[in-house]
Amino acid sequence: MQKIKTAVVGASGYTGMELLRLLLMHPNAELTCVTSRQYAGQPLSSVFPRFSQMAGSEVAFTEPDAETIKASGAEIAFLALPHGVAAAYATALLELGVKVIDLSADFRLNDPDVYEEFYGAVHPAQELLKEAVYGMPELPQRSEAIAKARLIASPGCYPTSIILPLVPLLQNGLIDPQSIVTCSMSGVSGAGKSSNVLFSFCEANESVRAYSAPKHRHLSEIEQELSIAASEPVAMSFTPHLVPTHNGICTTTSAKLIGSPESIGKALEAAYADKEFVRLLGEGSTADTKNVTRTNFIDIGWAVDERTGRVLLFSAEDNLGKGAAGQAVQSFNLVAGLPTQAGLQNI
Amino acid sequence: MQKIKTAVVGASGYTGMELLRLLLMHPNAELTCVTSRQYAGQPLSSVFPRFSQMAGSEVAFTEPDAETIKASGAEIAFLALPHGVAAAYATALLELGVKVIDLSADFRLNDPDVYEEFYGAVHPAQELLKEAVYGMPELPQRSEAIAKARLIASPGCYPTSIILPLVPLLQNGLIDPQSIVTCSMSGVSGAGKSSNVLFSFCEANESVRAYSAPKHRHLSEIEQELSIAASEPVAMSFTPHLVPTHNGICTTTSAKLIGSPESIGKALEAAYADKEFVRLLGEGSTADTKNVTRTNFIDIGWAVDERTGRVLLFSAEDNLGKGAAGQAVQSFNLVAGLPTQAGLQNI
Amino acid sequence: MQKIKTAVVGASGYTGMELLRLLLMHPNAELTCVTSRQYAGQPLSSVFPRFSQMAGSEVAFTEPDAETIKASGAEIAFLALPHGVAAAYATALLELGVKVIDLSADFRLNDPDVYEEFYGAVHPAQELLKEAVYGMPELPQRSEAIAKARLIASPGCYPTSIILPLVPLLQNGLIDPQSIVTCSMSGVSGAGKSSNVLFSFCEANESVRAYSAPKHRHLSEIEQELSIAASEPVAMSFTPHLVPTHNGICTTTSAKLIGSPESIGKALEAAYADKEFVRLLGEGSTADTKNVTRTNFIDIGWAVDERTGRVLLFSAEDNLGKGAAGQAVQSFNLVAGLPTQAGLQNI
Amino acid sequence: MQKIKTAVVGASGYTGMELLRLLLMHPNAELTCVTSRQYAGQPLSSVFPRFSQMAGSEVAFTEPDAETIKASGAEIAFLALPHGVAAAYATALLELGVKVIDLSADFRLNDPDVYEEFYGAVHPAQELLKEAVYGMPELPQRSEAIAKARLIASPGCYPTSIILPLVPLLQNGLIDPQSIVTCSMSGVSGAGKSSNVLFSFCEANESVRAYSAPKHRHLSEIEQELSIAASEPVAMSFTPHLVPTHNGICTTTSAKLIGSPESIGKALEAAYADKEFVRLLGEGSTADTKNVTRTNFIDIGWAVDERTGRVLLFSAEDNLGKGAAGQAVQSFNLVAGLPTQAGLQNI
Repeated sequence: MQKIKTAVVGASGYTGMELLRLLLMHPNAELTCVTSRQYAGQPLSSVFPRFSQMAGSEVAFTEPDAETIKASGAEIAFLALPHGVAAAYATALLELGVKVIDLSADFRLNDPDVYEEFYGAVHPAQELLKEAVYGMPELPQRSEAIAKARLIASPGCYPTSIILPLVPLLQNGLIDPQSIVTCSMSGVSGAGKSSNVLFSFCEANESVRAYSAPKHRHLSEIEQELSIAASEPVAMSFTPHLVPTHNGICTTTSAKLIGSPESIGKALEAAYADKEFVRLLGEGSTADTKNVTRTNFIDIGWAVDERTGRVLLFSAEDNLGKGAAGQAVQSFNLVAGLPTQAGLQNI
Repeated sequence: MQKIKTAVVGASGYTGMELLRLLLMHPNAELTCVTSRQYAGQPLSSVFPRFSQMAGSEVAFTEPDAETIKASGAEIAFLALPHGVAAAYATALLELGVKVIDLSADFRLNDPDVYEEFYGAVHPAQELLKEAVYGMPELPQRSEAIAKARLIASPGCYPTSIILPLVPLLQNGLIDPQSIVTCSMSGVSGAGKSSNVLFSFCEANESVRAYSAPKHRHLSEIEQELSIAASEPVAMSFTPHLVPTHNGICTTTSAKLIGSPESIGKALEAAYADKEFVRLLGEGSTADTKNVTRTNFIDIGWAVDERTGRVLLFSAEDNLGKGAAGQAVQSFNLVAGLPTQAGLQNI
Repeated sequence: MQKIKTAVVGASGYTGMELLRLLLMHPNAELTCVTSRQYAGQPLSSVFPRFSQMAGSEVAFTEPDAETIKASGAEIAFLALPHGVAAAYATALLELGVKVIDLSADFRLNDPDVYEEFYGAVHPAQELLKEAVYGMPELPQRSEAIAKARLIASPGCYPTSIILPLVPLLQNGLIDPQSIVTCSMSGVSGAGKSSNVLFSFCEANESVRAYSAPKHRHLSEIEQELSIAASEPVAMSFTPHLVPTHNGICTTTSAKLIGSPESIGKALEAAYADKEFVRLLGEGSTADTKNVTRTNFIDIGWAVDERTGRVLLFSAEDNLGKGAAGQAVQSFNLVAGLPTQAGLQNI
Repeated sequence: MQKIKTAVVGASGYTGMELLRLLLMHPNAELTCVTSRQYAGQPLSSVFPRFSQMAGSEVAFTEPDAETIKASGAEIAFLALPHGVAAAYATALLELGVKVIDLSADFRLNDPDVYEEFYGAVHPAQELLKEAVYGMPELPQRSEAIAKARLIASPGCYPTSIILPLVPLLQNGLIDPQSIVTCSMSGVSGAGKSSNVLFSFCEANESVRAYSAPKHRHLSEIEQELSIAASEPVAMSFTPHLVPTHNGICTTTSAKLIGSPESIGKALEAAYADKEFVRLLGEGSTADTKNVTRTNFIDIGWAVDERTGRVLLFSAEDNLGKGAAGQAVQSFNLVAGLPTQAGLQNI
């Protein structure tokens, strides 16, 4: 079996680790380069003892450097770097002919002004913005665009869980676009591999709290994609919460129903019945993070509340899986012309 | 120090256990009778090893029987029984002259038809409904009513976390009463001491999910109290979630802002600045369950979202504490003429 | 690629679920029959929503019945049944020509009297005891025996973590066989998918305790294999503990050192350097369950305590993986003539 | 009621926080001074939101300075400082006439050479070593010594759980002093309020591992007290483990039995039947951390293993409670002439 040579740039955090996990198990991928300033020179297996003795885990970390990545033979590079940092690597790698799947926020927004508003800095590589494709393959016409792209902006964890259930309803005019209220609950890995005492076991366990409301950074990409679907600017209320699980995001969205109660299920079925990684749970079913952790699935249920005239959308995904690394590998499969489910059939 | 003689009826679950914990530590309470069909004849300390060697823990469980409770000398009885069952005990105890603080839903609703709608049965003791006082002492004029009552309907866990932040805003006309959307996250003890495999460690850990939406039973008492505050019928969207903590409820409520951004803080301060168990965290602060577990505090923060014209209310309480047993002891202190904080200064 | 047809008998518990997970991902296995009295008639994906939309998950549960299993075409059947029950199925399946990998305790003990002593019942199929092979492939000459066997007794979760580190030391006379003291800590899934309130989230979380000491049932197979290695009857002190994790066993064993400090590492290296699923961490390193969960690895570290003249052995495995389902699939690969790591390269 | 003025020096960690919690609830204590370099100038309630609105929580953190502490009127100071740092404060405070209860390791060892061996530095205040009393009130004649002391060396968390069950057996010659093997499991708060990523939620949850074996620092004080009880030098095997709970220590000790099986229970009863904070669970019972968290209790059970001729001792305590702050308050009550259980009747 032919294997696509890949690199993971910035592989020391949780998203990077999940990418490594997926690529080490991927039947059509070969890790030729793994970078980390912090761990340069150390073998993968000593930094991540979990991966020790796995085929492919003999690779050693190198300094992040576009030339080195190219020299390793990598055809496609995953960037698991902080926003602001990723753009420079993307630029350099694309110039060297290496395709880029960027998991940072640097190329997710079409409008550099929105980037500046939400990320507090001038966009570092505006000339690439037009070219970048927001890598959520289940969106309309998106998988074709991803397959042809050189630069994929792989979506954030919250956006996936919010955008996918809403897009078919907005596209079909079934809900009021200005009535959307969302609460999401994320596992602690969403905060990254952090030495911040706030995310220590003793502080995060037996703790549930909202944070970053009302203007979390991910809101920018969420509203961008919802606006496209609604064909009008959408502003929504979004409150993320931190809950004591390792991974998983559970999202509940409420919106004013315009269509009939049955229209919700029909629109979701029409959009996703043939999508490998979307599982529709049916009306009246809620989604449980425990069924999606360490997979690339997103589970979606819904309920109509006749008392308030609102519809409730329930979704669950792994913030590191479908919300980050899994979705990036999904784009990788598209870019590399591999079967959709290659390397993503892990449960 | 004089001690009020008390009974706990149905003391084998988590709410009952928390009541026992609070009463064993209460300087002005004496447990004269503790009932449990399941544990009748066993000493408290063998059923709850945690309480062993505490002063007062020598008492043995008896069968739940109004005459026995009265004979023990109890002046005030706490009912930690299932709804439908509590009403009969309340009736019998009141006839014998024992005051009742009922932690079930039996006397929380003013309207028996709403009870029937939400609990699926004819109300078992309608003649007592008028007399019962909904025991949330921080509501306007409520503590005086509680002090004089024979029968207190102690509120449910979700309602407290939702009603307290909203009432001052509704009373002052600062939000649109028909725009309220609430998500709550509860620890697993909210499901009771259950042998249901759904609440086993392996099923509940690393699991986050919505449930009982859109029409959770507690919605009935929430909307009742909000309607009183708003002086109009309120229907709201409420989605409870289960998260892997032992106890604690975190609630996020979103509503259309009518008043000025500053009016929110002012109304909350006016209502709660002098309330011992309400802690206002200020604008921009969220509430964390870890600060309120095993206390009788409710923490409240808020934020104004100018983009959507909505206000966000963040609250946290212990579902077993301020959301159940603590609030019941608060009513007990009022009924018994004790200092507000007696037995509730535990952190 | 040719696929071996397999059945899982008694697939509703955690071990069964892990077997299903491994077999659904196994490139050379096909699930033709999955049985459960409780779930008969239901599709796999409705009982285990996690597996929904996975290739192979369309199979439906059937009643456990040897003829049905045979009729499905299964060549090899895994039994994830309670001890005492498994023996009858093994007998019937072997008669029908279906090879059996039994994960219960029924065929682990060579001596039916020891079975009776530890399991409190006459052994249900003594004639098969001689034929059964204790399926721990890393033991000397064991993988060859497994490859030729019709009936594999797949080891328990605690035994694997205790036996593997000790056998090379006992075989080489490096420790005093009568001085062994072991403490193990198991995740709650070790108790099975249980409705016992003891294993509910609220009772098991924030709880650590010993149980079943000093004579846990698994002690019988542990001492059997240690006695073979030591060429003398071994009696040891073993205390299992329950800790609040989903899965994983961490074992610490202490024994009087007879050999030199260096001899420990040498013996372990000689025994396991070429074993795919044993990872030697080196002297001074302890083993962490988080590195082995959901894998078939066992990690082993050690330390010499010169102050007491004892050696400490540290091991970690997944109680459901190398301690149950993973090890059973390892035997399956041997019996089916597949590569050692087939279907077990999941991390 | 008269209140003893107290200071807590170094109150920003988990032990300090638990001391504050206990002292804020203590009917006979008043916090006049709370120090923390990190938080100097901030009110207690802003650093620890949990304590907000508690009577006594208005006190503000000051720089740690002996004169300031004295000037606050404090009669007794608790030191929750790192070892090596505590000694200087103890010296200065004692000179100013303030009695000291030191929770660090600085005064726990009678022999400065042992201190140097285990803590890697010359003892910083050897002249005070003779005067210091190892503050474990349940040891023979210890409570009288504590009551008269100016300087209490309050024991470590592991030692309490190991020493208390063993001392009566060693004193009565019921076990072989050279055969002791102990495994302990501690909650993550034992590692302190740490920004080390090792103790982050994502690294510590679903993780169980041994550490610091075979020569944990606490071994020095454990062996000191066991040697006194045995009237001979004792060397033992001790392996601590980290488990994913907030607090609690579970300890299992195995030793060769010399006395009769019944002698174990008799010796423990004779030693502890009248001790308020020791709960003997009886033969065959194990101890569960969930029954002792946030209390000052230590629970002790035991079992005799006739197969190996060993006795097993099971103990559980809160590492922050009886293993640290609770035990220190117990000494405080003795020094201040207060009732034994004052401020320690919290469950």
